[in-house]
Amino acid sequence: MNEIYLDNSATTKPFDDVINTMSRIALEDYGNPSSRHNKGMDAEDHVKKSKDIIAGILKAKPDEILFTSGGTESDNTALIGAAMAGRRRGNHIITTSIEHPAILETTKYLEKQGFDITYLPVDEYGIVNTQALKDALRPETLVVSVMHTNNEIGSVQPVEDIGKIVKAYNKDILFHVDAVQGFGKYRIIPRKMNIDMMSVSGHKIHGPKGIGFLYVREGVRILPYMLGGGQQKGMRSGTENVPAIAGLALASEEIYDNLDTERQRLYDMKEYLISNLKDIEDTRINGINLGKDSLHEAVLNTCPHIVSFSVKSIRAEVLLNELASRGIYISSGSACASNKSKAGVSDTLSAIKLPKEYDESTIRISMSVFTTMEEVETFVREIKEIIPDLRKYTRR
Amino acid sequence: MNEIYLDNSATTKPFDDVINTMSRIALEDYGNPSSRHNKGMDAEDHVKKSKDIIAGILKAKPDEILFTSGGTESDNTALIGAAMAGRRRGNHIITTSIEHPAILETTKYLEKQGFDITYLPVDEYGIVNTQALKDALRPETLVVSVMHTNNEIGSVQPVEDIGKIVKAYNKDILFHVDAVQGFGKYRIIPRKMNIDMMSVSGHKIHGPKGIGFLYVREGVRILPYMLGGGQQKGMRSGTENVPAIAGLALASEEIYDNLDTERQRLYDMKEYLISNLKDIEDTRINGINLGKDSLHEAVLNTCPHIVSFSVKSIRAEVLLNELASRGIYISSGSACASNKSKAGVSDTLSAIKLPKEYDESTIRISMSVFTTMEEVETFVREIKEIIPDLRKYTRR
Repeated sequence: MNEIYLDNSATTKPFDDVINTMSRIALEDYGNPSSRHNKGMDAEDHVKKSKDIIAGILKAKPDEILFTSGGTESDNTALIGAAMAGRRRGNHIITTSIEHPAILETTKYLEKQGFDITYLPVDEYGIVNTQALKDALRPETLVVSVMHTNNEIGSVQPVEDIGKIVKAYNKDILFHVDAVQGFGKYRIIPRKMNIDMMSVSGHKIHGPKGIGFLYVREGVRILPYMLGGGQQKGMRSGTENVPAIAGLALASEEIYDNLDTERQRLYDMKEYLISNLKDIEDTRINGINLGKDSLHEAVLNTCPHIVSFSVKSIRAEVLLNELASRGIYISSGSACASNKSKAGVSDTLSAIKLPKEYDESTIRISMSVFTTMEEVETFVREIKEIIPDLRKYTRR
Repeated sequence: MNEIYLDNSATTKPFDDVINTMSRIALEDYGNPSSRHNKGMDAEDHVKKSKDIIAGILKAKPDEILFTSGGTESDNTALIGAAMAGRRRGNHIITTSIEHPAILETTKYLEKQGFDITYLPVDEYGIVNTQALKDALRPETLVVSVMHTNNEIGSVQPVEDIGKIVKAYNKDILFHVDAVQGFGKYRIIPRKMNIDMMSVSGHKIHGPKGIGFLYVREGVRILPYMLGGGQQKGMRSGTENVPAIAGLALASEEIYDNLDTERQRLYDMKEYLISNLKDIEDTRINGINLGKDSLHEAVLNTCPHIVSFSVKSIRAEVLLNELASRGIYISSGSACASNKSKAGVSDTLSAIKLPKEYDESTIRISMSVFTTMEEVETFVREIKEIIPDLRKYTRR
């Protein structure tokens, strides 16, 4: 049976040469970048080159790239680091109600530490209300954290507008963007967009697991989160994961070298998917406004790789299992462990006020550079067969 | 020129099959363990098997193994997690004055958060004073954190005795052991030694960088440090670094399969090293009591792989450079970045009251399973040639 992997927002298959490069570095340049001999310097060179590559993509400075163990650590570092550094200046943090748990669990923790958190509402398509942001800003606001692309429904926030609003109010407020799903799909230039900090994960862009980075604009002062040997100029202790850092840089490079053509291809597949799914009876496509514009334009207003699809009266789990038995791998809402117990009723789906009958019936199809139109066609064919079949047994 | 790598306490060359296994898993079983389809389950299987392997080595339970991004994160999680969870019960933490910066920087942070820290003194050989520990214990003591094997001078703490003292005073006090340098050299059975938490790093035992684990005994309550998707039963969020986890388990297995013969071989090389270095004029071997017993017995009271050597009137940096030019790679005091600015004057060397004239003249030779007696002989030959040569120019 051919396997069709459509769970790329959970994780992606790494590029072959990312893994080959990592293996070579791990075995040949295994030194510790902090060691002051050739083996250490060879390792440090990989870290430097990787910073250069990523900084080039972001039109940033190499020293603005802080390597972390992944998106979660980047988010934790950004919020807790900024909150602790700014404690004397204020205690207010603004975020949205559709962030990843790496943000929402961190703001919950900060609430317990005495910080006041505003969760901005979103509209039914998962777009943050910028008027609500304007109303929420206060003299004691320290950080505004908004995700670039939502991992469950694929809505894309007006990050540039938000940056302008934040900085117009007070340029000292730090603007953090969780770009774990947006990096590798969009050209995000932090300086142009007033972004002070930005979180990225390696394994969402065909890079390695266990690595990510936090962009921290020069001059932004946050406290380090990981304490110890003082690596990365004291901002992130722990021996640098050299092979994974090089793998992350290489994956970033490959993704951005082909960004425009790949994005177009993903959009074509997404449009095909939605045009075929939208008319199935008693279903909905989430995170996209299909009413206003042409389908083509509507799709372009969302991210290129994620489709959120709800099927009334069929539990997501049943649908996933049936698809899996046919070799098609997707997820419900999102793949995060915190979602496991609640089977699809996520913060994001609540925030877009998904009608109750779809609560446990939402699946996510997510594509990557390895996804082919043929696979997407197979998926459509199979799901069109599965839905009426399953409904025979589940209709109450 | 043949390279001789004697900086294994900074980092080790990974085993070939560790890297091969990681590559295979990264490319074939690339799923997210949180995904509920075959790709996710295959990934989760690797995590489970890895826990089983490591738990087997420690005679522990699989669920007592928490994977982290490395030794630094393990130490941060243990101390901050225990301090925050125990906040209401007490505010006192005991550690030693020769811990790794991942502990000492974390206790400094906790001091700022209102915790009271006792730093136990050590004797001139770097062994903690157990009477000082007895005197320091208080009703409000939450954690005692003692490193198993010192990374700079190779002294080994009486961990089992310390565990007994702590638990005799109050069994609710958590006993944490930083075993980053001890794991892979000693059989450490946490339950037998009253250890509640233990930090381990992958890249010190020929495993991958960017991975480690924290043993947390069943029933021990600490707060999670990395917040987000709730992976690892909520105790460490962030997508599991599956290939590195499997690599860490495989490296642990290989190391422990050959522990006794390898340790003997390392001790033989260490004894050869010390017997040849100790009589060089105006030098000292640190972290070992050469006065009391035979050299053989003295060596066995220290760890098998680290030799700390001070050479009066030659700066460590000069010695390192000269050795490096001959293809021999070692470090000063330790390879940690925080040491870079101070060129060898570390907390550990201060704590053992190293005479001032040796302050900036201390190097560390650290061996591994890849080190051969022939390499050690070459090192001895070279350094015996280098020292008098350099002294010609540096004698004041």
